[in-house]
Amino acid sequence: MNDNIILGVNQYGKAEVRVVKVTRDSARHEIDDLNVTSQLRGDFRAVHEEGDNAHCLPTDTQKNTVYAFARDGIRSPEEFLLRLGRHFTGNYEVVSGGHWSAEQYQWQRIAVNGTGHDHAFVRSGQETRTACVTLDGDQTWVVAGLTDLVVMKSTGSEFHGFMEDRYTTLKGATDRILATAVTARWRYNRLDIDFNEVYGEVKRLLLETFANTHSLALQQTLYAMGKRVLEAHPEIDELKFSMPNKHHFTVDLSPFGLDNPNEVFFAADRPYGLIEASVLREQSAPAGKAWENVTGFC
Amino acid sequence: MNDNIILGVNQYGKAEVRVVKVTRDSARHEIDDLNVTSQLRGDFRAVHEEGDNAHCLPTDTQKNTVYAFARDGIRSPEEFLLRLGRHFTGNYEVVSGGHWSAEQYQWQRIAVNGTGHDHAFVRSGQETRTACVTLDGDQTWVVAGLTDLVVMKSTGSEFHGFMEDRYTTLKGATDRILATAVTARWRYNRLDIDFNEVYGEVKRLLLETFANTHSLALQQTLYAMGKRVLEAHPEIDELKFSMPNKHHFTVDLSPFGLDNPNEVFFAADRPYGLIEASVLREQSAPAGKAWENVTGFC
Amino acid sequence: MNDNIILGVNQYGKAEVRVVKVTRDSARHEIDDLNVTSQLRGDFRAVHEEGDNAHCLPTDTQKNTVYAFARDGIRSPEEFLLRLGRHFTGNYEVVSGGHWSAEQYQWQRIAVNGTGHDHAFVRSGQETRTACVTLDGDQTWVVAGLTDLVVMKSTGSEFHGFMEDRYTTLKGATDRILATAVTARWRYNRLDIDFNEVYGEVKRLLLETFANTHSLALQQTLYAMGKRVLEAHPEIDELKFSMPNKHHFTVDLSPFGLDNPNEVFFAADRPYGLIEASVLREQSAPAGKAWENVTGFC
Amino acid sequence: MNDNIILGVNQYGKAEVRVVKVTRDSARHEIDDLNVTSQLRGDFRAVHEEGDNAHCLPTDTQKNTVYAFARDGIRSPEEFLLRLGRHFTGNYEVVSGGHWSAEQYQWQRIAVNGTGHDHAFVRSGQETRTACVTLDGDQTWVVAGLTDLVVMKSTGSEFHGFMEDRYTTLKGATDRILATAVTARWRYNRLDIDFNEVYGEVKRLLLETFANTHSLALQQTLYAMGKRVLEAHPEIDELKFSMPNKHHFTVDLSPFGLDNPNEVFFAADRPYGLIEASVLREQSAPAGKAWENVTGFC
Repeated sequence: MNDNIILGVNQYGKAEVRVVKVTRDSARHEIDDLNVTSQLRGDFRAVHEEGDNAHCLPTDTQKNTVYAFARDGIRSPEEFLLRLGRHFTGNYEVVSGGHWSAEQYQWQRIAVNGTGHDHAFVRSGQETRTACVTLDGDQTWVVAGLTDLVVMKSTGSEFHGFMEDRYTTLKGATDRILATAVTARWRYNRLDIDFNEVYGEVKRLLLETFANTHSLALQQTLYAMGKRVLEAHPEIDELKFSMPNKHHFTVDLSPFGLDNPNEVFFAADRPYGLIEASVLREQSAPAGKAWENVTGFC
Repeated sequence: MNDNIILGVNQYGKAEVRVVKVTRDSARHEIDDLNVTSQLRGDFRAVHEEGDNAHCLPTDTQKNTVYAFARDGIRSPEEFLLRLGRHFTGNYEVVSGGHWSAEQYQWQRIAVNGTGHDHAFVRSGQETRTACVTLDGDQTWVVAGLTDLVVMKSTGSEFHGFMEDRYTTLKGATDRILATAVTARWRYNRLDIDFNEVYGEVKRLLLETFANTHSLALQQTLYAMGKRVLEAHPEIDELKFSMPNKHHFTVDLSPFGLDNPNEVFFAADRPYGLIEASVLREQSAPAGKAWENVTGFC
Repeated sequence: MNDNIILGVNQYGKAEVRVVKVTRDSARHEIDDLNVTSQLRGDFRAVHEEGDNAHCLPTDTQKNTVYAFARDGIRSPEEFLLRLGRHFTGNYEVVSGGHWSAEQYQWQRIAVNGTGHDHAFVRSGQETRTACVTLDGDQTWVVAGLTDLVVMKSTGSEFHGFMEDRYTTLKGATDRILATAVTARWRYNRLDIDFNEVYGEVKRLLLETFANTHSLALQQTLYAMGKRVLEAHPEIDELKFSMPNKHHFTVDLSPFGLDNPNEVFFAADRPYGLIEASVLREQSAPAGKAWENVTGFC
Repeated sequence: MNDNIILGVNQYGKAEVRVVKVTRDSARHEIDDLNVTSQLRGDFRAVHEEGDNAHCLPTDTQKNTVYAFARDGIRSPEEFLLRLGRHFTGNYEVVSGGHWSAEQYQWQRIAVNGTGHDHAFVRSGQETRTACVTLDGDQTWVVAGLTDLVVMKSTGSEFHGFMEDRYTTLKGATDRILATAVTARWRYNRLDIDFNEVYGEVKRLLLETFANTHSLALQQTLYAMGKRVLEAHPEIDELKFSMPNKHHFTVDLSPFGLDNPNEVFFAADRPYGLIEASVLREQSAPAGKAWENVTGFC
């Protein structure tokens, strides 16, 4: 019990700062809708051990900074987070690094007589875009991503030939529904990127590859999706995926005198399969702290 | 304490039966994805007062019936619920009526080279479609609807000239963000309707009217939305709305030496304004039990 | 299409005003933690039809009033809502009635050396207390309640002897788990009540009756719970319940060479049975508008 | 683009297996209610790259194993997960390690005439207990924890003397509400532990230290809580905390002619401060992979 007790890894900041930026340069407005989290790293022993706040930049100030910086525009979540991170690490000696992350909600113009309205929008609700910037000393990592992109194939998916043991009751399937909610994150190897454009391209490739891959296992589909993106985007070194297998069980209708040729399914909530993997370039630079603050992945 | 204690209004059934129906008549599959609830009404005193189940059709059986009926196809949520309701009221003397309701999740085909894929889908996530059918004796009511259609106007919204009292601190606004999540339900006055087609039209009109109405109050926008639908759809007698005023507060940037000409907003969670109203034809038939089981509305 | 379109039933207000009141009369603090919703009724045609706000008391003002009134203390949610309701209906001619409702979160003192701390609390998290006050002209209704009181019996529950049809596959059970999340609301027939004390007593009786009732159906348990409260509390005229049957299915372990004498269960999420009923005094006064704004009940 | 694309870190399994175990050795039943996740690690290249499932133990089989093992009793979540982990790593050459985690929901006996009932329970709802076991080759790590333990101090908390910059608007406070939802995880340095007893003790110490610490910053309270546990429990080497600062803002009642001596507060949802830190013994063994699968911590 004579052990010395010390402070380990730590960070603090303001989470979930909801900022909506309207760009009104013309009558045709643009909207950026973000949920921003700022977390600082540095030498914060005094505040933990003694309640001495002299080196503590309040989380309230971090929130104010988000709003003040938004006045100059968001452009992309990645660029906005880079600006925030450089401000905090560049202006306060005690701040040696940190994490700045955001969710971005997507809006589309409401169609009126076939044309998008100038200042009326409907939230698209499909997926949520994510971004995470990590700074440590003079190093910078940018991870882009998306979450809750729910997809389904009604055929073109098999699962059989698996290992069996005394606890196995599952029968192999040569035609099953494959459904998942894609969470994907990708690590860039440079910063001079049109982040919005690449985001759209990656999303398109993920969807297209999910659709086009005849699946023998969800793992195989996942790997194909990552590989396809890496082949098309040299500026990306690695993708990480977390993909629940959202089970759709064929309902046994035989007690009611009915067949069920893969037409009627029960969509189950829990439990669910959970497939997680990274796909990366063998020669890529080390990931460093890029994934340090990205939760929900192996 | 000599009062007689009795059973009042009651109903029972199976809630949230998740059924996915794949129509595979051709290589180009169709998907119907529903969350169905069945609730029976009738004389169920014996089960409550004595635990006598002789007149109790188990909720498990109601669930099985949903899956069995799905084998023949869903067509529209309204038609599917009507089939279920007529089955239960038509075949069991003890069942005098009930409520059958559903949420429907929307899927769209994944685009591959600009074309929708035959059997790969992405959940659109925009709004959730709802339907509720009520039977009572030989009467039938059908209420369609949608929920969580999130919309925003970045200008074209004012709010001023309101009543003031000693607790008033709000300043009038001549230019504010107007944002809400539309929940709407509409009551049909006949049953021979192409429910899917009308649904799409009503959604389009709701969005278009939200966009085109210069708003002096969220109540005014709500009323205009309902009026527009009633003018275009004689088969609808009434719409009910529940619309939260999702406040977007202009952030005061003056402490940081910045102006904020309605460009940077804090999107608040709670509290929120809540506007609820019905818009209807003066000469419409009485609503009867149409709204009896539709919760979340005044 | 020449029909006259009119405004139907409507109400508006501020929802989910989160107010925490600390009573600091002595070093031993008390906490009241409420989520308050205020909804006004009256003649609000002008704001809907013309955007004329002259008769609109802003939802922001309603929020301010909640905080101002909290300065004088909460006492009980019911008394606090009555004060709010009487203020709005008594001071504004246009307000003819309304609904004021609240959730109350329960806190208990943190035990330090076996004694409750003076000003440190832990949220109990068991159930949420609810209250709803309705005013209309000179009439007043008070409905108290609770939600999310999750209970389970590991034996002492049967279900058999039910109606069977061609869609029945369920086997009767003479020993099953009975689990539910109780939502209950009760209507008082007078106002001079120690609302906090009665609340505690009703909760105790609901739990005790759930435990002591050998159940032949969840309906029977529900009815017994309501009857027991009415027998003990003449100031209550009616209770309404909404009780999901949270299914716990016995797992078939026979493929693994194991028996399962009701020891290992799968706790399912969806679908679930849903049992709703009112239990009341036959001679009670009419419910009037007491239940008008209480959602989630039949 | 000639880069070699490879599979990186990966794992798969069944998530959220809901198992309820009733121990019926006597008329006085015991309940264990767990949400179990099993994730396997090993050489799974073939299934990712080729869809070859020969080395894939289906997630369905992992689920079955959870239920089969529950037949022998749970004892503590940690012991149950250790049994599962040793089974998978011990019986399948391809499985080199993995993560097994659980949430445990707490139930207490319903009081009837002051005595706990034999087989009727109410869910306590306070906190959720968590456990996570990691195996890798012949190494084993056990991390226990809890989440959503919501606590509040109505006084005895200050925050001032912090760093100021051009974005600072916060005023220092000498008396504020301190509220948080504690998520804590602790790493054991040995396995021969009465996990249930230590869990109760750690929870008690966390609560007691939160109550007794006069707080100058939430960081200080966090550190004191960790230190106190480490001083009392030599079998624990490290605790990690994630503690949101759930802001309670004093409402300005002066526009209404009222003072507010820290009595009326607005409980805000977002944004919130977020304080994360590890507290550990300086001489402790390296954490190895103990935290690898524990998300939501820095």
